Amino acid sequence: MRKIGKQEIEDMAVGAALLGTGGGGDPYIGKLMALQAIEEYGEVTLLEVDEVPDDALVVPSSMMGAPTVMLEKAPSGEEAISAFKQLEEYLGKKIFGTFPIEAGGVNSMLPFALAARLGLPVIDVDGMGRAFPELQMVTFYLDGISATPAIIADEKGNTALLSTIDNVWTERIARAATIQMGGSVMNAMYSMNGKNLKDSGITNILKLEEEIGKSIRLAKENNVNPIEKVLKTVGGFELFKGKVSDINRKTETGFARGVATFEGLYENKGETLQLRFQNEHLIAQTENRLLCVTPDLIAVLDAETGLPITTEGIRYGARCVVIGIPCHPKWRTEKGIATVGPKYFGYEVDYVPVEDLAKKGVTL
Amino acid sequence: MRKIGKQEIEDMAVGAALLGTGGGGDPYIGKLMALQAIEEYGEVTLLEVDEVPDDALVVPSSMMGAPTVMLEKAPSGEEAISAFKQLEEYLGKKIFGTFPIEAGGVNSMLPFALAARLGLPVIDVDGMGRAFPELQMVTFYLDGISATPAIIADEKGNTALLSTIDNVWTERIARAATIQMGGSVMNAMYSMNGKNLKDSGITNILKLEEEIGKSIRLAKENNVNPIEKVLKTVGGFELFKGKVSDINRKTETGFARGVATFEGLYENKGETLQLRFQNEHLIAQTENRLLCVTPDLIAVLDAETGLPITTEGIRYGARCVVIGIPCHPKWRTEKGIATVGPKYFGYEVDYVPVEDLAKKGVTL
Repeated sequence: MRKIGKQEIEDMAVGAALLGTGGGGDPYIGKLMALQAIEEYGEVTLLEVDEVPDDALVVPSSMMGAPTVMLEKAPSGEEAISAFKQLEEYLGKKIFGTFPIEAGGVNSMLPFALAARLGLPVIDVDGMGRAFPELQMVTFYLDGISATPAIIADEKGNTALLSTIDNVWTERIARAATIQMGGSVMNAMYSMNGKNLKDSGITNILKLEEEIGKSIRLAKENNVNPIEKVLKTVGGFELFKGKVSDINRKTETGFARGVATFEGLYENKGETLQLRFQNEHLIAQTENRLLCVTPDLIAVLDAETGLPITTEGIRYGARCVVIGIPCHPKWRTEKGIATVGPKYFGYEVDYVPVEDLAKKGVTL
Repeated sequence: MRKIGKQEIEDMAVGAALLGTGGGGDPYIGKLMALQAIEEYGEVTLLEVDEVPDDALVVPSSMMGAPTVMLEKAPSGEEAISAFKQLEEYLGKKIFGTFPIEAGGVNSMLPFALAARLGLPVIDVDGMGRAFPELQMVTFYLDGISATPAIIADEKGNTALLSTIDNVWTERIARAATIQMGGSVMNAMYSMNGKNLKDSGITNILKLEEEIGKSIRLAKENNVNPIEKVLKTVGGFELFKGKVSDINRKTETGFARGVATFEGLYENKGETLQLRFQNEHLIAQTENRLLCVTPDLIAVLDAETGLPITTEGIRYGARCVVIGIPCHPKWRTEKGIATVGPKYFGYEVDYVPVEDLAKKGVTL
């Protein structure tokens, strides 16, 4: 148990941007909401999962929809509270604590904003170890934990309580309702007990986020190479050094889809990297080498500062280092690959772990 | 209080098709479901509203979505029961009886199927006195009765409980969820007490349906003109005699939109009638005369049999009589016209009561 204040939030937000692998929403607005709530209501208690009783009711707090919409219709915080209160009433039990459904992006920050307001602890665990775009893409789904009863709430006061036959149906119905409700909503879903959370969640992920942010911050202060520090912190691999030579984005079926092209520099001179994304970076390959593929994490870092760059932030001419990070082992199971592997996203390649690709290289 | 058996259902289904004004779904499948339930569980008690206690909980049973979809994925009846049971649990009160949300089309029949299975009475009242395509288009909305808590349930076992700030939001969110849930769902919404139902509902509408069906049936048996009988039963006006010369339908944004053109016969020889519809018939006009406009009812009857024809059933060359029927006075208020008048549906004409149009004619 420890207290989370403003510096921890600042560091975590950097780590959340990196684990967001280009998507998951820029944590910026989530960070602002968390900082404001801590300013107003005080620091938040962070618990390790072992500190949660097995029979405690725990519920992640998250937003669904386009994070860009949140910038235009900023959540008041009331909708998240309303969703939690309605779920407590439905289940007839008090919620013990909250946690991020995904560590990557804006959703890693929102639980702090809610927790500060409600006086709840945040638990150091998530259901992805990164960011993914659909709500069945969580380790809880792999372990058979139901997303429902699921409550979605908008800032106007509309709510929907869903009860579905599986989590893919929750995704479908909630997604359609979200679009009607203005494009972004707050969720209370995947309620579970402490035992399930310990068995199924990805633990110490907020600590990892904080360490990522801290290592980049301290590298800058100490004038050392931040990228080496980051790679050591996350156990990742440098995939490519290059300069953005082309960026092609379009928004379709609710996704920011596109390709960023990097012209190689230094040891990659003469090569070209193509990075394909659908909100998150999903596949990185050169003309003849596959470098990294979902569910392993692909992050683009600024070559100077080491700071992570989202797909929206990729600019022509920027010098970047593309890194790959092994995903959590739960994603490397058969059900994991079926849920978030390259074929689910429409890429006709087989999943190969990034450590194999980085060591041996795979010729396409 | 009286019992409703198979003959009453057969007659009511004909009346429901006429009050459906071309849309509302062909009552055929609803009739089959009602007949089968009565066969299996016995006749259904029909109550007049005065027989309902003021504090009784009453809930209409209805489907939402495309009735054509119901033909392909026939409801088991379980989804309607599930929606009612879930609403009872949510409200902590037993449901006393049910009634149709709309008298026109398939939704006039479905409450009988549910009532037979649950042993509930059906109450002789509805919220439209006809059919309309959106769920805020009920007299209950005009009188400030909330559609929520609203439950929608599909045949797979998915349900959503909506709580919204107004009934237009219920429509938006439920419509989007319905499309995801396969295009048609069963609803339990607009729960109210007996007092509200008496004040806000359109009473004796099932009796009227039955009389319409009976007058057409008896006219045939007695070899008299069925259309004269129908006009007398509903207090309607003959608008146009003609032959279908063109029919143009397309499905867009979930509506069957189109125009049917009738070439005049007899006293209408030389004139052409255009009948525009969006699921329901909404406006009937010739080259220079407006004949009838929503919310007044426009029905197309077979010139021989007097049987109502839905927009799907309009065939090239068919000889028809187009009739107009005054809507319930609640629709002629300012809020009524704003909710279901011609401008809501995108027609730039002012509402004029059909009795004025039929008597004086309005030159366009």
